Amino acid sequence: MSSQKVNAGKLLEQVNSPEDLKKIKETDLPELCKELRQYIIDIVSVNGGHFGASLGVVELTVALHYVFNTPYDQLVWDVGHQAYGHKILTERRDVFNTNRIYKGISGFPKRSESPYDTFGVGHSSTSISAALGMAVASHYKKEEDRQHIAVIGDGALTAGLAFEALNHAGVEDSNLLVILNDNCMSIDPNVGALKEYLTDIATSRTYNQLRNDIWRLLGPISKFGPNAREIVKKVEKSIKGTLLRKSNFFEALKFRYFGPIDGHDVKHLVKVLKDLQHIPGPKLLHCITVKGKGFALAERDQTKWHAPGLFDKITGEIKKSSVQQPQPPKYQEVFGHTLVELAEKNGKIMGITPAMPSGSSMNILMEAFPDRAFDVGIAEQHAVTFSAGLATQGLVPFCNIYSTFMQRAYDQVIHDVAIQNLKVIFCLDRAGIAGADGATHHGAYDLAYMRCIPNMTVSAPMNEEELRNLMYTAQLEETTGPFVIRYPRGRGVMVDWQKPLKSIPIGKGRKISAGEEVAILSIGHVGNLVMKATEALEQEGIRPAHYDLRFVKPIDEELLHEVFKEFKKVITVEDGCIMGGMGSAVLEFMADHGYQARVHRLGIPDKVVEHGEQAELYEECGYDPASIVKTVKALFAGSTVSKRLIAS
Amino acid sequence: MSSQKVNAGKLLEQVNSPEDLKKIKETDLPELCKELRQYIIDIVSVNGGHFGASLGVVELTVALHYVFNTPYDQLVWDVGHQAYGHKILTERRDVFNTNRIYKGISGFPKRSESPYDTFGVGHSSTSISAALGMAVASHYKKEEDRQHIAVIGDGALTAGLAFEALNHAGVEDSNLLVILNDNCMSIDPNVGALKEYLTDIATSRTYNQLRNDIWRLLGPISKFGPNAREIVKKVEKSIKGTLLRKSNFFEALKFRYFGPIDGHDVKHLVKVLKDLQHIPGPKLLHCITVKGKGFALAERDQTKWHAPGLFDKITGEIKKSSVQQPQPPKYQEVFGHTLVELAEKNGKIMGITPAMPSGSSMNILMEAFPDRAFDVGIAEQHAVTFSAGLATQGLVPFCNIYSTFMQRAYDQVIHDVAIQNLKVIFCLDRAGIAGADGATHHGAYDLAYMRCIPNMTVSAPMNEEELRNLMYTAQLEETTGPFVIRYPRGRGVMVDWQKPLKSIPIGKGRKISAGEEVAILSIGHVGNLVMKATEALEQEGIRPAHYDLRFVKPIDEELLHEVFKEFKKVITVEDGCIMGGMGSAVLEFMADHGYQARVHRLGIPDKVVEHGEQAELYEECGYDPASIVKTVKALFAGSTVSKRLIAS
Repeated sequence: MSSQKVNAGKLLEQVNSPEDLKKIKETDLPELCKELRQYIIDIVSVNGGHFGASLGVVELTVALHYVFNTPYDQLVWDVGHQAYGHKILTERRDVFNTNRIYKGISGFPKRSESPYDTFGVGHSSTSISAALGMAVASHYKKEEDRQHIAVIGDGALTAGLAFEALNHAGVEDSNLLVILNDNCMSIDPNVGALKEYLTDIATSRTYNQLRNDIWRLLGPISKFGPNAREIVKKVEKSIKGTLLRKSNFFEALKFRYFGPIDGHDVKHLVKVLKDLQHIPGPKLLHCITVKGKGFALAERDQTKWHAPGLFDKITGEIKKSSVQQPQPPKYQEVFGHTLVELAEKNGKIMGITPAMPSGSSMNILMEAFPDRAFDVGIAEQHAVTFSAGLATQGLVPFCNIYSTFMQRAYDQVIHDVAIQNLKVIFCLDRAGIAGADGATHHGAYDLAYMRCIPNMTVSAPMNEEELRNLMYTAQLEETTGPFVIRYPRGRGVMVDWQKPLKSIPIGKGRKISAGEEVAILSIGHVGNLVMKATEALEQEGIRPAHYDLRFVKPIDEELLHEVFKEFKKVITVEDGCIMGGMGSAVLEFMADHGYQARVHRLGIPDKVVEHGEQAELYEECGYDPASIVKTVKALFAGSTVSKRLIAS
Repeated sequence: MSSQKVNAGKLLEQVNSPEDLKKIKETDLPELCKELRQYIIDIVSVNGGHFGASLGVVELTVALHYVFNTPYDQLVWDVGHQAYGHKILTERRDVFNTNRIYKGISGFPKRSESPYDTFGVGHSSTSISAALGMAVASHYKKEEDRQHIAVIGDGALTAGLAFEALNHAGVEDSNLLVILNDNCMSIDPNVGALKEYLTDIATSRTYNQLRNDIWRLLGPISKFGPNAREIVKKVEKSIKGTLLRKSNFFEALKFRYFGPIDGHDVKHLVKVLKDLQHIPGPKLLHCITVKGKGFALAERDQTKWHAPGLFDKITGEIKKSSVQQPQPPKYQEVFGHTLVELAEKNGKIMGITPAMPSGSSMNILMEAFPDRAFDVGIAEQHAVTFSAGLATQGLVPFCNIYSTFMQRAYDQVIHDVAIQNLKVIFCLDRAGIAGADGATHHGAYDLAYMRCIPNMTVSAPMNEEELRNLMYTAQLEETTGPFVIRYPRGRGVMVDWQKPLKSIPIGKGRKISAGEEVAILSIGHVGNLVMKATEALEQEGIRPAHYDLRFVKPIDEELLHEVFKEFKKVITVEDGCIMGGMGSAVLEFMADHGYQARVHRLGIPDKVVEHGEQAELYEECGYDPASIVKTVKALFAGSTVSKRLIAS
């Protein structure tokens, strides 16, 4: 648990709160921004965390807290990985070194952490809805002086939720300011029509083309006489001032549109924000910023520097762990490479990612087969229904969505894919405990919310080879219907992972090790934690059996009959919620077949699990190897095996 | 099961397929439209179903199948309740009298029913994503002559999914035509900024205002000499022709925009569609239509005539069931009236509905407290996050969403409400088997997908009084956190339902009747089916105990201890999926507390349940009273009680 403190600059040192900030002279703000930027670089380089996003909004952060009366005025950061500056300026500079560390402060705004964090975030595109709710509440409570500000990126704006909010906000006469932080990026470069439009208006391309069109239509201007040029100029001015404004995308949604302005000119930002304070109703300020601003390497390779890990702040060298021997790959890499391998042989395979080409490794397919891989923007719902459309035409879409983000496309999974029994392969990355990103990012519920859907196959590989084989199996001609493969964040367990692809019988688990007295049933990568536990227990002569279920649905009935005929004590282990998860599926099987046994379910308990390293959180949740050992021993206690062991 | 046939008109009689349709002379198309409209009126008046939507697209339906080469060209109807004309023209006229009837054809397009139904629908706003998927697939397969058409209403366009699809489609160079069926309606009048914008461009208001602004800015035109007027006219023309087009909302999203045109002029539609066939890339045709067109009463009161039930097609009188004695109210009405009753006393209460004011009865609050009720459009995601925003300010939002549509806001429930433990009260109408709307509309999964979320209270009332008391309890000051109340479509069981409001202890069930040998645990309104069963069993001397759990979460542990201490045979009954539902929660309790008992779970099985009357589907699923009786008897068989009964 690294947690290094760093020193703040002279001005920043005096600023612990927005109240302090307001004492800084306006002319000193650029210097303060410099110090804040340096502070973020200093901290993140030694403690890790998100990087580019916060650097990009340093001036915006300072200007917002300088002008507005936070926390009475309510500031909602979309996604929230850009809120480091905000945290540092709002009474958390001293604890900022615990950012994203177990029991430390959260990497995202969080209501329970500070009154300045008005709305907990992590997933994108919620800010306008939330801020509108606050604004409507203030209006209802007659707090008309209260301001409500949502800061949202152009990437987050592509998600449907943001559009739904704009559509509603445009007709609510409430005190809402949306700040569009336009840096042309999500984690990867932003995509889609709206992004092109924003670039277009930022560069005045539309206006220039229109002017040319008008000139062309007017024909030789001279024939109209000497005043013609003056008339045209006046018309032009009118067009620019009135017409473009009125016909702007946001104006179409009844927002007053301002900008685009330079999001790194803090003095100008302060001036504009002061003006906007006095304009009632829904309004949008378009700010152009650069992700990673002020750290040259981060400006140049924005995706890499979204969350680079630890780095040398002088040389920019990103630190690798110093392990000498080869390491197992990340599951996401196995996904990426295997998908290309499969796509080379199966021309029907297509890849779909909602704005996560690098995070999911879909970029490998995008590179290999550009016409067969689609980054649809932050748009999980569309990613799923678009995949369903592809599937109706006999193509085989691999739709890769982080488990936690798949929650956003739940209806599309049910309504557009499962009810029609379409063959869409859902690869859920970052399933289970996600680690430092915390409560908003754990993929805790997928086993529960997926297995209740008809026609669905739900699987989880225990290692890299299994992931590859599940992917291979899912795309086979004879495999029909929707197919979920969920796997965790981080590295697997096999250095030598590129085994030949083999088909797995659907709904079939496997026995990892025979044993006595207690059977452990696991699903997915936590089978490796169980193996560690059984190895430790072996030392004490305790030998529970261990089965890897592989599939929660269809569940391996043959295997379960075998287990329940032989064992009266069963432990289930899953990296997912124990309410309704795999353990419950096992209980359902028992009830349906009249088995009686003592079943102990291990998994994510029914509470909000915060951030920390995965191993720390497995321990907290009680399914790290030591906890498994303890549970097994408790079940062994008093058994005949236990007595035999004591006797021996 | 009413299923009356009616006769088709002379032209329609000859048309069983689009192939037949293409043989009709273009000049006869208006007459054919008239006949098709009449046919829909004739059928729906005697068989029931959706009404206004299909009448509104008669000309569009005829023109589309006349011009395009369906089903090779792929036509996706959004939502699908407007597709009656489509079904009648595509080989289903003869079976159209079985529309929405058990084992009959579906009221929505359905892939398994016809190759003309390219994509199953029911929920809104999926069409652009699905059609884009098809278009991309055709492009990949080099079927470049293939057309892909999504027909979407202005109401459906407000949902985020549609926007996500537009944003992606704008940058995919595929053969996609979006037809915007602009009738200013969802089921209720459409709302939001986009709707105002569409009205605006349909009526050229923006253009006219711009022209005035330009004239005003130019000042007295005379001073520029005689040619000035001519110049201005030319500029104006240029503005109208080029600039408004370029700056159009859809053009901003890189769609080519055409229209608005009259959606009831079939000959003009044919001409325009023929032209559009030859324009590559994403394009949008804006059609203005009237919902209910051709049936005067339906045009006048479009919400009432969305799905009016049976009616006299001459007088327009909507038939009421001829029951003499007073009937119990619909659950939705109980919700609507009780919400106002609560809002009168608790000034913090707000109501939110995503485009279902009449369906949910939120319109009663909208009438009573216009500033406290919000129709946010078809935007379930925003409805939830907006509610979360209100809750952060201490207000108490009642967010009413049909169970099946709540699937669309699953992430918002988890991420924006539950993780932050905000007090949002979710009232899930139409939970469980929804009836004639079928597979897409059953609220089958909510108990499973809600109970796995931390901080969540999940309840279901057994009758009107319980619904009122749960609503009352949820809004009490001392009640914290998110609170789900799910209740079914249709009427309750209490004629005299307006009982005084009483608080219910959270997580407490109740004993309905004592008994022996078998305990039945039910949740929600199916408790009444259990009561019917126990009354029937009583006649034979069989007396199972019956408990109403009320809450799936927190589950009543005290009650369950009582049950499992006394009973070794338990039946659980729920109007929801048995995978992961209430029965599984009971099994989890048993496992956690080491109880052994035989548990038989009744509920919606793990399959896609199609349409039919609720009672028919309860029977199919095996939890109608007769099935419950059968299950109880099977468990009694061989018991001591059974032997006593045989002996007596």
